[in-house]
Amino acid sequence: MKGVLGVLGGMGPLATVDFMRKVIEVTPVTRDQDHLPMIVHSIPQVPDRTAAILRGGETPLPMLGDGIAALNRAGVDCIAIPCNTAHYWFEEMERGSKAPILHIVDAAAGALDRRGFHGATVGFLGTTGTIASEIYQSRLEARGYTCLVPEPGVQDDRVMAGITEVKAGRLDDAKRILEDAATGLRARGVATIVLGCTEIPVVLDDDALYLDATKALAEACVTWFVERGRLARAS
Amino acid sequence: MKGVLGVLGGMGPLATVDFMRKVIEVTPVTRDQDHLPMIVHSIPQVPDRTAAILRGGETPLPMLGDGIAALNRAGVDCIAIPCNTAHYWFEEMERGSKAPILHIVDAAAGALDRRGFHGATVGFLGTTGTIASEIYQSRLEARGYTCLVPEPGVQDDRVMAGITEVKAGRLDDAKRILEDAATGLRARGVATIVLGCTEIPVVLDDDALYLDATKALAEACVTWFVERGRLARAS
Repeated sequence: MKGVLGVLGGMGPLATVDFMRKVIEVTPVTRDQDHLPMIVHSIPQVPDRTAAILRGGETPLPMLGDGIAALNRAGVDCIAIPCNTAHYWFEEMERGSKAPILHIVDAAAGALDRRGFHGATVGFLGTTGTIASEIYQSRLEARGYTCLVPEPGVQDDRVMAGITEVKAGRLDDAKRILEDAATGLRARGVATIVLGCTEIPVVLDDDALYLDATKALAEACVTWFVERGRLARAS
Repeated sequence: MKGVLGVLGGMGPLATVDFMRKVIEVTPVTRDQDHLPMIVHSIPQVPDRTAAILRGGETPLPMLGDGIAALNRAGVDCIAIPCNTAHYWFEEMERGSKAPILHIVDAAAGALDRRGFHGATVGFLGTTGTIASEIYQSRLEARGYTCLVPEPGVQDDRVMAGITEVKAGRLDDAKRILEDAATGLRARGVATIVLGCTEIPVVLDDDALYLDATKALAEACVTWFVERGRLARAS
C-alpha cells in the first residue's frame, strides 16, 4: 500500500464524513483503486472544544493525544483533523506525533494564495469559539493576511443563529442570515471570506466569494501525497 | 470510550462514506458526543472483487485479512464491511477476526423481517459479480426467503447499464432503467426488492418497494451496540 492519510475525526461525526467525501472528490484519479487509503479515528466522545476554550470545560487534549498516538501506531504517513476548533491544541498534538499534521489554517492560506489573494484582507465566518481562540487570525496574519471577523453583535445574532439554522435543517433561512453577515464583512473591504466551520459550507458555496476550509484541507492532503509520488496519478 | 465500530472499507471509497453517514443518521442520539466511535480502514487498493470472482483475477483475501487484523489490533468491538461483493470471502475473514463481523445479508434479512416480509419471495438488484457469487441467494434462502434475480438479459442491459449511468452521474436515466428492471421482478411476484449494490440507492429510495442493504447494515451495527448497552441512549 502506498501512503496512508490518517484522519482524527468525529468532531462532529458528519463533518468527518464530509471531509472524507471532499478528499475523494479532489483526488485526481479515475478508478477506485487509485484513491488515497485513509485510516480514520472518528471519536465523537472528545470533550466539547468550544466549552473548553470559552468556559473552562474539560480539556479534550488527552483524548486528542490518544487519537494521534493510535494513528501513528497504525502507520499513517500524515494526519488531518477536520475540526477547526481542535486546532487550538495543534502544537501539543504535533509534539506527540511522528507523522506530520497538516494545519487547517495553513491549508486555507495555501488555497487563498492559489486564488490570487496573497496578502489580502480576508473575512472569516465560524463559531464564536474558533474566533475567541484566534486560530485563524494569528496564523493567517503570520502568512501575510489581515483577517477580519464579524462585529460581536453580528457574530451572535447572525453567524451563530445561521449555524443553528443549518443544524436544524432550515437551510433557506440559514443561507439568508449567513449572507447578511457576509455582506457586513464585505462592506468592510474583505477580498474573500474563509468559511472556517463545517456547517456553513452546507449553504454557502466554495467559489470566488467564499473559501471552504474543509475543502482546502482535503486539497492540502491530496497535494501532500501527490508531491511525494504516493498517488497513482498526479494531474 | 464505549464500544467502537470497526469499518473495513474503501471498496469503493464513496460507498464507505455513504455507510458512515447512514450509521450516524440511524443512531438514536441528539448530541455529537453520543454517536458511535468508529475506526475506519478505507483501503481502495483491495484488488477488484468482481474480477476475482468472475474472471480469476488477483484475490483480495490477503489485503482483506490485513485490514481485519489491523482493526482487531486497534481494539474494535465489532466490524462491518460496506461492500457487498467482499462478503464472498466472509468466512475466511471471520476465522481471522476476534471481533465479530456483521454480515450485510444477515442485516438485510433482519430488516426484511422487521418490515413483515419474513419467508417472502424477494427480488434482488446488484452487480453481476454479486449475483454470480450467490452471496444473497444462499444466505437469504438459509433464512427462509426465496430470492429472485433479474433474467440474464435484463441484468446486462438494464441493471448493469443503470449502475453505469449512476457512476456517470446521469441519474434520471439511471432511475428509469433500474425501475424497468424492478418492474420485471415485480411481475414475477416479489414482495419487495433488496438493493445490494452501493450505487443503486442513489436513485431508488429505501421504502416499501426497496430495501437498501447498506442502510440495513448501518442499522444492524447500531442495534449491536444498543443491545449491549454501549450507546448512551437506546431509544
